[in-house]
Amino acid sequence: MLKVFFIGSGKLAGNLARAMQHKDIELAGVYSRTAAHAQKFANTYNMPHVESLHDIPKNYDVYFLAISDGALHEIAPQVNMNGLLVHCSGMMPLSCLNGHVHTGVFWPIQTFSSMRQLSLRDVPVCIESKDENDLRILEVLADKISKKVIQVSEEERQKLHLAAVLVNNFSNHLFTLAQNFLAPGLSFDLLKPLIIETAEKILDLPPQAAQTGPASRKDFVTMASHEALLAGNARLLDIYRLLSLSIMDTTD
Amino acid sequence: MLKVFFIGSGKLAGNLARAMQHKDIELAGVYSRTAAHAQKFANTYNMPHVESLHDIPKNYDVYFLAISDGALHEIAPQVNMNGLLVHCSGMMPLSCLNGHVHTGVFWPIQTFSSMRQLSLRDVPVCIESKDENDLRILEVLADKISKKVIQVSEEERQKLHLAAVLVNNFSNHLFTLAQNFLAPGLSFDLLKPLIIETAEKILDLPPQAAQTGPASRKDFVTMASHEALLAGNARLLDIYRLLSLSIMDTTD
Repeated sequence: MLKVFFIGSGKLAGNLARAMQHKDIELAGVYSRTAAHAQKFANTYNMPHVESLHDIPKNYDVYFLAISDGALHEIAPQVNMNGLLVHCSGMMPLSCLNGHVHTGVFWPIQTFSSMRQLSLRDVPVCIESKDENDLRILEVLADKISKKVIQVSEEERQKLHLAAVLVNNFSNHLFTLAQNFLAPGLSFDLLKPLIIETAEKILDLPPQAAQTGPASRKDFVTMASHEALLAGNARLLDIYRLLSLSIMDTTD
Repeated sequence: MLKVFFIGSGKLAGNLARAMQHKDIELAGVYSRTAAHAQKFANTYNMPHVESLHDIPKNYDVYFLAISDGALHEIAPQVNMNGLLVHCSGMMPLSCLNGHVHTGVFWPIQTFSSMRQLSLRDVPVCIESKDENDLRILEVLADKISKKVIQVSEEERQKLHLAAVLVNNFSNHLFTLAQNFLAPGLSFDLLKPLIIETAEKILDLPPQAAQTGPASRKDFVTMASHEALLAGNARLLDIYRLLSLSIMDTTD
């Protein structure tokens, strides 16, 4: 049975640990900078925790660095072990783990919130390593939690990460902008069925074929009315104009 | 039983007719500029069709102008009847139906594609009229097809329409941009679970609380790497910068 250790106890570590429970994987332990977090995590997922980087046992199979991109350069060199050290970042190069013999990347294409539990079953997991054996280990682990495991190059992973920012971070921000625009008089709840349909539609149709709205039909009258509604909201007006222009360019 | 007549036989008319079937509403007939479309529509939803605007029977209860915004000014004055004439536009003023005695608006907040059948049950329907009796008629109809009927002012409807453009048209366009950015090497399918989760998340969390990504954590290193990946794609780079800036402003 593969033994995995978590360095970090945040949203991603929690989702990985929950996905790996009862899957013939030994959850060997956790370390977090904040000892109380490590302890809580250890209790939740039924594993030991250690309170110092130096106390991390050396001979487990895989060590997950489930920490922020910014912390990788600081923490990775301090991890002293003989296993496979992987980070879970969409953007960081594999080379940020240089100095270790066995390194890899294990990146699920998903957005995680502490308030939401979700299944990784349908979430694509991108794996990367320079070593064939290490890649096999990551594949075995990923196959246990996801139906969709893909081996990617660093360049491919980074492209996927940027694309994920477009479809998730930016779409979600548009939801925030819409909510703020409607407040205080109109409830954001009125848009929820439309938001769900917007997402579900692309399961059936290519997004280009699903495109509707004034910009896609070059309805300049409606666009001018919308712009008039945005007078006094310079940032949102800029966004409206830029995205409308981009839609018009794409639907020539 | 209320008798309704459809002027227009496109996606919206089809979705309304399907929603109204077997709901104690008489589908009294349909007219379309293109006679073949009217005939096909009439066959599909089991109602008569007429081939000329002048042949539209005068004494039904409600006449739905399910046509493009741009065609309303031309078609509305030519409809000669004694019932309640309603348009189905999110943006057009009620006054575009001036000249008729009984007028109103019946606007479902949803995006329709010809290739997708969807239920209107959970879709909010916005109704509007200056006359209390006409409003009651629209309410009775809307209540039969949707659980969520709201009476709105023209200003409120137009704000909702603009917000709908933000969450639907613009999000969907971001999906297109992501697909184009990944092509030809990487499949858009890899993003679909993320897109579904992005939508479902806001059923549980306010979008502001669901926001993740480099801009929301002011991770300038990742943003610079993303911008480098977009060199040579000026439009997408502009969009990336503007939306990232907007996210940073919103997460102060």
